[in-house]
Parts: sequence; C-alpha cells; structure tokens
Amino acid sequence: MKFVVIGGDAAGMSAASKAKRNMTDMDVTVLEQTDDVSYSACGMPYNIAEPDREIDDLVVRKAHVFKEKQGINLLTGHRVESIDPAEKIIMGNTIAGEAFQFSYDNLLIATGGSPIFPDIPGIDLPGVMALKSLNDGRKIKTYISNNSVKKVAIIGMGYIGLEMAEALRGRSIEVDMVKPGPVFLPWMKKELSDIVKKELEENQVGLYPGHRIDSIESSGNQLKINSSGQTIAADMVLVAIGIKPNSELAAESNLEIGIKNAIAVDKRMRTSDKHIFAAGDCADAYHVVNGEKVWVPLALRANRAGWTVADNVCGKPAELPGIVGTAVFRVFHMEVARTGLTETEAVESGFDPLGVVIQTRSRAHAHPGASTIFTHMLADRKTGRLLGTQMVGREGVAHRINAIAVALHNRMTVEAFSQTDLAYAPPFGPTWDPLLTTANQLIKKLNLQ
Amino acid sequence: MKFVVIGGDAAGMSAASKAKRNMTDMDVTVLEQTDDVSYSACGMPYNIAEPDREIDDLVVRKAHVFKEKQGINLLTGHRVESIDPAEKIIMGNTIAGEAFQFSYDNLLIATGGSPIFPDIPGIDLPGVMALKSLNDGRKIKTYISNNSVKKVAIIGMGYIGLEMAEALRGRSIEVDMVKPGPVFLPWMKKELSDIVKKELEENQVGLYPGHRIDSIESSGNQLKINSSGQTIAADMVLVAIGIKPNSELAAESNLEIGIKNAIAVDKRMRTSDKHIFAAGDCADAYHVVNGEKVWVPLALRANRAGWTVADNVCGKPAELPGIVGTAVFRVFHMEVARTGLTETEAVESGFDPLGVVIQTRSRAHAHPGASTIFTHMLADRKTGRLLGTQMVGREGVAHRINAIAVALHNRMTVEAFSQTDLAYAPPFGPTWDPLLTTANQLIKKLNLQ
Repeated sequence: MKFVVIGGDAAGMSAASKAKRNMTDMDVTVLEQTDDVSYSACGMPYNIAEPDREIDDLVVRKAHVFKEKQGINLLTGHRVESIDPAEKIIMGNTIAGEAFQFSYDNLLIATGGSPIFPDIPGIDLPGVMALKSLNDGRKIKTYISNNSVKKVAIIGMGYIGLEMAEALRGRSIEVDMVKPGPVFLPWMKKELSDIVKKELEENQVGLYPGHRIDSIESSGNQLKINSSGQTIAADMVLVAIGIKPNSELAAESNLEIGIKNAIAVDKRMRTSDKHIFAAGDCADAYHVVNGEKVWVPLALRANRAGWTVADNVCGKPAELPGIVGTAVFRVFHMEVARTGLTETEAVESGFDPLGVVIQTRSRAHAHPGASTIFTHMLADRKTGRLLGTQMVGREGVAHRINAIAVALHNRMTVEAFSQTDLAYAPPFGPTWDPLLTTANQLIKKLNLQ
Repeated sequence: MKFVVIGGDAAGMSAASKAKRNMTDMDVTVLEQTDDVSYSACGMPYNIAEPDREIDDLVVRKAHVFKEKQGINLLTGHRVESIDPAEKIIMGNTIAGEAFQFSYDNLLIATGGSPIFPDIPGIDLPGVMALKSLNDGRKIKTYISNNSVKKVAIIGMGYIGLEMAEALRGRSIEVDMVKPGPVFLPWMKKELSDIVKKELEENQVGLYPGHRIDSIESSGNQLKINSSGQTIAADMVLVAIGIKPNSELAAESNLEIGIKNAIAVDKRMRTSDKHIFAAGDCADAYHVVNGEKVWVPLALRANRAGWTVADNVCGKPAELPGIVGTAVFRVFHMEVARTGLTETEAVESGFDPLGVVIQTRSRAHAHPGASTIFTHMLADRKTGRLLGTQMVGREGVAHRINAIAVALHNRMTVEAFSQTDLAYAPPFGPTWDPLLTTANQLIKKLNLQ
C-alpha cells in the first residue's frame, strides 16, 4: 500500500513514522518543500533568546534518520503543486525545477499554516519578518546578529508575539508591540489580561493596541511603521498577527473547506475524499465542549492527528474526540493558561455562561514565597456545566489548567469538579486548590441566581 | 437548633463556620481541648525550618474571631469525655477541672488523630517528640533552640518524617531516619522511590530501614536509640511512624467503628447514630476508584467533610463522593505525587493491574533547565481503566498529578485519558505531556497482552 504525505512537519512526520511502526512493509513517501523536518517550532522564541545556541538545536530528528532508520522515503525540497483525486496522483516540482509525480492509495495533506502578512506598503522590505518555519527562525536570528538589532517592533499581540517579546528583551533588545485591535488580549477576561499587560510593561515592552498599521518604510538603516498618524521606528519588524491554514492545494482539488478556511476533516481525519486525510495546522477539529468545528493550530493536536491518520490508513479505525481549547504560554515571569470556551464563545455556542474571577495564593497560608493566582471560571447557568477556565500567575498555573481540561473532556459540572481530590502540600498551594476555591465561589454564585 | 462540635481543628471549625453561614441563628458550640484552633498543621515542618518565624504564624484565625465575628460559642480547654446518644448530651471537664455538659440536636465528632508511639522503653523520655498539634510544633521548635540540637533521629519514613528531614537539614541539623520496615517507601514503585532515596542521601540524611527499634535511653545530654544491635545517638528523637484516629469517644458511645479503627461514616458523614456526624482525621471515607472504605487523614478531606456535615445539619442534604488517594509532598528539591491505587491496593480490590514506569523531560526538547520526570501509571488489564499514577521529579509534578485525579473521579480508561487536550509550551513540558507519553506507553503494553 502506498501512503503519501505532503508536508514533513509535526503532523506529517508523526503520521509517516507511526504508519511505518504499524506496518513495516508499507510504502511511505513524505514530500517536504523545505529542507527541515521534525523540529520544535514552539521552541524558536526560546532559542532566539540565546545568541550562542544554534537554531538547529531544535531539530528533533534529522531527515536521514527517517530514511535510514525508519525506511521512510523522505524527499525534502519537493513542492507538491496539484492533486488528482480521481487518478490518485500528486504532482509537483523540486526546488531544482524537476517535475515529479507520485501515485497513492492514501494521501495525507499536512501542509501546515503560514503567517499572515497585512496587505500594506513596505511589508516586503528587508527586515520585515515572520516566525513560523525553522528557516524563519534562522533568518531572524541571523538578521539580529548581522544588523546588531537594538529595537524590534512586533505587529500583533498573540502567543508568538508575546513569547518573542520576552525572548528579545532577554537580549536587551527594545520591544514595541502594536496592533489595530483595541483590546490587549481580547479572548482573556480583563482582570487577567491586565496582569499580563502589567508584566509586559514592567519589562519595558511598549504596548500600542488600537493602532492601525498603515505602511512600513525604510529610513536609513531603520524601518518605520506608520501607524494611526504616529511613527514607530525599529531595526526589525516582526509580523505576528496570526497564521492561516495552507488549504489552497486541498481547495483546488475540490476538497471541502471548513471553518476559518481550514480543511474540513471528520474525527478520523478524513477529508471529503475518502482516500485523502488532512492533519495539523491545515485541518480543523471538533471542540469537545460545544461539539462544534474549530480551528486551533497547536502542536499536540498536530502530532495526535498524525497518529490517528496512520492508524486509519493501516486499517486500525481510530478517532480523535477533539480538543477542549487548552493553551499555555509564559510571558517573562508570568504563566498564562486557558482551556475551554471564553465567555463570548460560550454565548455563541448557545450556553448561558456565568463566571467568577477569584484571587488565591500559590502556596499555603504563611508559606514563604507565595504569589497571587488569578482564576476565571465559567459555567452554564442552566446545567451548571463547566465551560472554561483561564489562569494567570507567577507559579502553579501551567500544569494546574490540565485538571480543568480533563474535567471538560468529561463534561463535568462545577459542582462535581469541586468535589475532586486534588493534591495539597504547603509549597504547592493552599489546602483548597485555587481551582477548587474558584469552583466553590462559582457554585455560590450559581445558587444565588 | 443546637449543633455541638467536638474538636476545633480543620473539620470541626469548617463545619461550625459553614453552619453559621448557612443559618445565622443556629446555636453552634465548639468544644476544643487545647487552646489552638484553625491553624495550618501541614505548614509546621516549613515553619520549624525557619528559626526566626513564630509558630503562631500558622494560625489562620484566632479563637476570638470565631466567637465575635461568627457568633460561634467556641470553648477552648474543654475536653469532652462522654456522649449519651440516647439523651443527646455530651459531658466533660475543662482544663481547670470544672465539669460541663451540653445537649445537642446534632453532634459532630471531629476529634482528629494522634501520633502513634511505639511501646518501647524510653519512649517517654524528654526530647522524644511527635508532630501533630500546633503545641507539638511549638515544643519541638523550643526544644531545638533551648538544647542547641545538632542531630535528630527520626523514627519513621512517612510524609511528616520526610518533610521534617528537609526542615531540619535546612537548619544544618544532622538527620538519621530509622524504621523497622525493610522498604523505604513501600507504597511507591521502586524505580521512583529510589529517586527519592537518592535525593535524601545527597542531602546527607542517613536512612536505616529494616531497623527494629528496641529502646531509647538517655546518655548524658544525648538520647540513644537501640536499634537491631546498633546505636543511633541524637539530641532529639522525632517519632513519625503515623497517626491513629481518635475514635475512642465514638467507640465508647457504641458508634460503628470502621476501617483502621476510624469512625464509620456514610457519604453524608453520618455515623451509625443519625444525630451524630464524624469528620476529619477521626473518620473514614469512600475511595472512588474501588468503592471501598478507606482511612486517609488529609487536610482537604477534613475541610470538605466539615462543610458537608454543616450542609446536612442545616437541612441541605449533601454527599461527598469520596477521595481518590491524591497526595503530594516535597523532599528537598524533589516533588513527589500520587493518586489512585497502588499496585498492591489494585490487586486487593480485585483489579488486574498492568503498569509502566516512564522517564520523560520536564521541559521541551532543547529547552534549557529540563530535568527527568519519572511516572508510574497503572491500568486494569481487562477494562483498560486508569487505576493510579505516581510521579517524581524536580519540577512539574505537584500540579500535574491533578489531571489524573480528575480522570480517576470520572473513571476514565487510559485510552480516553490519552486523548485529553493537555497544555503545552516549551518551558513547561514536551509537546506530549509526561502523563500522555506514559498513557501512550501503557496503552501499547495493554494492546500487546
């Protein structure tokens, strides 16, 4: 059986490797347009933070290992340009300009996502960069060194932008962040996003939300962002307003395109063509909390989806229940985590959300070194079902959120969650875990309705 | 309505306070034999670690606050000596020798637990102490200062003993730990307990498991433990072989006594007398994983049980589903956590457990500062149901265990757990959380059967 994979990043390589583990005699071909496969994309900001580390430290497994040790026919520098689903053939060209074609029994589209660039004058100037591929990371790191970058303007205030702000400040590079939207972290409850904002300000990051980006121009050795009548000067501009799914190939092949332009897949990762699967940042997913389709380009989902494709291709029917919207990031000394629906998402999904924001401590009463944990928890008024949670704090946030993620997968009510036997010891939290205290307060509010 | 509470610690004060919040006009009396109420007992080792801190820092709320602000008739120095369930009266004597009696409509026995002292010669010598009450903490702290203690021998190797070893080493006091049982932490998978053992040894704690304790004698200014023919000298001996439930009063009143001599209660915390409740370290609980009765004297359960009693007493029927056996502690720089059943407990409960021990990293590939996390996970061979998990590591253990605790409350299979959407960012873990990697390996092993 011939299994062809387009794209050699998280989803693609997970699928290819697992297919070979499942069936050692399977003919597995991976076509990757760049030279990089299997690297820790999420680690790039932290690598860029350290001038002495090689960007290639992030490579988990080199291409030749997949070929030699796993018997995968991995072809880098191979860009797939079209799919013929009727004939079950894919066609393309190598970087060197040689045409190629492969036939398949099963195909996986794992083309990932691409950074979004705003359509403004100057967006293609040298020094205007985005961070998505390992090569992007390489270019940014080199640019910073070669041009002795002292100041970076970041367009956008999402995860990547925030992680990069931390990374650059760690190298004593000045950072300004600018975006057209008026609200700093719009998905986050204001009491919590204010804490994150304060952390950025205390680390000398300039924040300019509500600033239209009109154009970028070159001025001497510098770049200038013209923004709502103001000018923000910088040695480098990082565009981090988000990514979009690379679904063009699928769309041109008449596969069904779903939410946010991602390739629509079922729980088995099948597209609208039964021999074509999609996984990773190019494909959509189910949200377990509201049962709706969602597009959340995150690493764990990509890996997991790759495995599921491999199992299905190998005749082991496998389904992914979906995601619950868990994410965590660090901003300087602050841990920020979320899972489930936001208040807006909950309303849009037909729930009637009621929420609380509670401050608790990260360690027990009288235990030295405690800091404040801010927790926002949402439940449905009618059913008491837990809908989502957000947390911010200096410690004890990143892993705590997982208890809520598991609760969401099990469709627990806040009441049931409040009875769970969570761990307690003075260095790690109060007797009533911050999540339990928040749940207790939310129950009180639900009962007072 | 008259609600009388025997014991003013976690369970008792939680019940009294919540009863007054539920019904402000309720007549609530708490009888506490010591002078201390509402303190963080678990914080004592950490307080003892710092000579300059007052032990009274651990008091969360002083007795007069309960009286004045909450209108609770809180009587310290009142020792209850008998209960007459037929007449609904309790009787006792104050520290000053005055007899008292109170009638009740509902009674809560929250008499807690007491440290177990082995029955050996010399156990009552000055300088042989145990740590349970705040007064115990006070005495230990004073004894260390007044006698310039340079070396402590700890009898027992449980949580309290280990936390005290860390506390004492933090004050540069030498520590030897000795116990008759041959296995260091018998409930823990050996690969994991070996790590904890190594951490203790690296911090110069002498460990002597398999040493019978024959007697303690006084020798000059020192104490000597005679142990299996050897002698262990110390300035102070800490007895930390465990606690027992204070169930004598209940037994004398013919209430049903359950597992490990704890007072038997149902899910509403009712004893075998419908007007008498029991909660805290003196009462038993249900284990959610095997549905059996269990005695786990821990703080969260005590607080929660107190609240449940208050609700029931106030005519709001409330049940506690039970515990899943979650516990966490720190030993020097090592976090140790468990939840669910051990292999032995699983077998005893009629499960057919299959387990794995997996080493993963605490941070993402190539992220600096990562350390090893050891995870032991157990599932039932027949059903694939998750039965328990133990973890040891320098970081990322204490809060991670809660995800499994919630999974156990929901009776998840390992397969279902392996699909949960756990948080990922490079500073906090690998893309596949250590718990997911362990679950994946366990699934593989289950499938290979």
